[in-house]
Amino acid sequence: MPASVKCVAVVLTWLRSRKTAEAVREPEREGEIDRREAEDFIRLYHAENPSAGPVGPRLREVLAEVSQRGTYTHTPEELEFGARVAWRNSNKCIGRLYWRSLRVRDHRHVDTADGVAEECVEHLRVATNGGRIRPTITVFAPDTPGERAPRIWNDQLIRYAGYVGSDGSVTGDPANTEITEWARRMGWRGEGTRFDLLPLLIETKDILSMREVPSDAVLEVPLRHPRLPWFAELGLKWHAVPAISNMSLEIGGVTYPCAPFNGWYMGTEIGARNLADADRYDQLPVVAERLGLDTSHDRTLWRDQALVELNLAVLHSFEEDGVTMTDHHTEARRFMIHLDKEERNGRVCPADWSWIVPPLSGAATPVFHRYYDDVSLTPAFVRRTRD
Amino acid sequence: MPASVKCVAVVLTWLRSRKTAEAVREPEREGEIDRREAEDFIRLYHAENPSAGPVGPRLREVLAEVSQRGTYTHTPEELEFGARVAWRNSNKCIGRLYWRSLRVRDHRHVDTADGVAEECVEHLRVATNGGRIRPTITVFAPDTPGERAPRIWNDQLIRYAGYVGSDGSVTGDPANTEITEWARRMGWRGEGTRFDLLPLLIETKDILSMREVPSDAVLEVPLRHPRLPWFAELGLKWHAVPAISNMSLEIGGVTYPCAPFNGWYMGTEIGARNLADADRYDQLPVVAERLGLDTSHDRTLWRDQALVELNLAVLHSFEEDGVTMTDHHTEARRFMIHLDKEERNGRVCPADWSWIVPPLSGAATPVFHRYYDDVSLTPAFVRRTRD
Repeated sequence: MPASVKCVAVVLTWLRSRKTAEAVREPEREGEIDRREAEDFIRLYHAENPSAGPVGPRLREVLAEVSQRGTYTHTPEELEFGARVAWRNSNKCIGRLYWRSLRVRDHRHVDTADGVAEECVEHLRVATNGGRIRPTITVFAPDTPGERAPRIWNDQLIRYAGYVGSDGSVTGDPANTEITEWARRMGWRGEGTRFDLLPLLIETKDILSMREVPSDAVLEVPLRHPRLPWFAELGLKWHAVPAISNMSLEIGGVTYPCAPFNGWYMGTEIGARNLADADRYDQLPVVAERLGLDTSHDRTLWRDQALVELNLAVLHSFEEDGVTMTDHHTEARRFMIHLDKEERNGRVCPADWSWIVPPLSGAATPVFHRYYDDVSLTPAFVRRTRD
Repeated sequence: MPASVKCVAVVLTWLRSRKTAEAVREPEREGEIDRREAEDFIRLYHAENPSAGPVGPRLREVLAEVSQRGTYTHTPEELEFGARVAWRNSNKCIGRLYWRSLRVRDHRHVDTADGVAEECVEHLRVATNGGRIRPTITVFAPDTPGERAPRIWNDQLIRYAGYVGSDGSVTGDPANTEITEWARRMGWRGEGTRFDLLPLLIETKDILSMREVPSDAVLEVPLRHPRLPWFAELGLKWHAVPAISNMSLEIGGVTYPCAPFNGWYMGTEIGARNLADADRYDQLPVVAERLGLDTSHDRTLWRDQALVELNLAVLHSFEEDGVTMTDHHTEARRFMIHLDKEERNGRVCPADWSWIVPPLSGAATPVFHRYYDDVSLTPAFVRRTRD
């Protein structure tokens, strides 16, 4: 599915036209990287990995390389540690208990659109693992002084298209109308269903390329309900792997703008947000109607009742299909264990209350009933905003 | 029900023994009040109330009084405005759309335990209004330099006792075991039910006094469910008026430590917190069992299902008894209107996301999907911590 030359030209013009705005948010790497950040990271790595030996020699090596090239190259072990600690420092993530288990796929030599696309697909296969989801990150080439590394424009490797109709209504996922529009300008035509897989839009050296994600790399779970047979008729489904692709991995002053990573889903992400939010799939009125609820007034709690049934369907379907997923109660309990472990290790665990507390039955989970430190630590995943 | 001399003596000893800790949190008013705060408030009052005339003369009057007495006296109009704006500035309150409707009962001349108790009871009668709850505040004497005004030790005017058994279990409301213990030391003996009304503990000039709240001043709603007849058998109920009594009202440098105020309940405060929290009445397992839910695993969402039914019972019972209450969907929508109104009036509306978003179905309400400014503005209600 090659994009036509005309489409690519449009994109380049657009990219140039918004250069100023881009620069505000994501400055080109001009001079050398921040030596202090490099030093802090190398010290952290050696402090937490005594088997790596004394920090002195490696520190001198890193600083010498920075003097020469303006940046430095992480060892595979440093990269692995850095990626894992970036997860550990993710203040919005409730699922950090298993941060040490992150699989790090080192593909820093890859900097072409074909190479990135190919390894993203392989990432999905490795991470999906037949349903037993494996937390995985694939790290592509870093930015270097004067050289901009590849970027993926999609928020996640797997996203469903959102088509805006002439009346303003959206078929599919309203969160993805902008990226869908870009794909269409590049010549892509989806089937027009509510769950069309979007192609990946990969930017390399000011060229935007488009690559299809083969459907056999995308495990999906059709939703049904343990008690309500009609639920399957709604035709809802969701994909198994949430692989975030619009955040940069920042380690010791080095930015990896293309480093898609995934954990597994917590049920509410699908059942209480993606399918429920009024500006997403907006399924609460649909479910409530099938449940026969009185939707004439808020105080009948029809939204709350529909929400519970929708979430039950999500958890039930994933479990029946053998696809890893946790519920918000279990995950909240695990997070409390994680907090405790981090404290016992003498570390601050940064956490953003508004993200950690689940969107369903918040106060019925232990994470609701306390406050958190919310400091910014590095290594970190940092969102690249395009809008 | 006079407290014995022995009990009161114990309290005084205790008060003295924790003087240091108290001082850290709530310093005695030593010198004069903060002139800048006084000036800011007087200017705010005149800016928002043009009919009060130019600010200059009143400002000179206030500052002259501060020079003489170390404090100043608000006019009834200033007091009313200050109390209403303190509500408007309450960043944790979702129900601020009606801040202008607050009834202000001016009882600043009252500084005895009997006087405070009497007017608190009258407050409850006025606010309850046969079920059509009226947002009300009663303002008692302010602190002045060298003179500590009365304080109420109870968190709210109406609170249910919590009795700790020999095995550590609690009968009643576990949130109130400390104040229950103080009442017991003062000679109070409750009936030992789950819903015993606590007496008011009122501190005046280092004397702690206890006064019963007559039950005919306390409207209560027995809980039943629109579809589930067995629900009434659980014997649950709650009081109609949430009247907070452990916050100081601070206006223009003057502190009113005894200024109980109430709005009406949002259903989730009772159904998703007071009766549901594991460290409060912990009724989710009880409701789930009666619903016949599988409580063997979190992912059956038994907590979430029980929570919805419990909240439905709360809303239904209050509505059927004609007692004012809002649901979280309606109130969240009203809060968005309030925000909009405040913005159009050129004002910042301080809001704490973690308090504004309801504890049930958070993401299904509009307040979830945005961030807020969270600045501290005065006039304000400020919590007096005793623990």
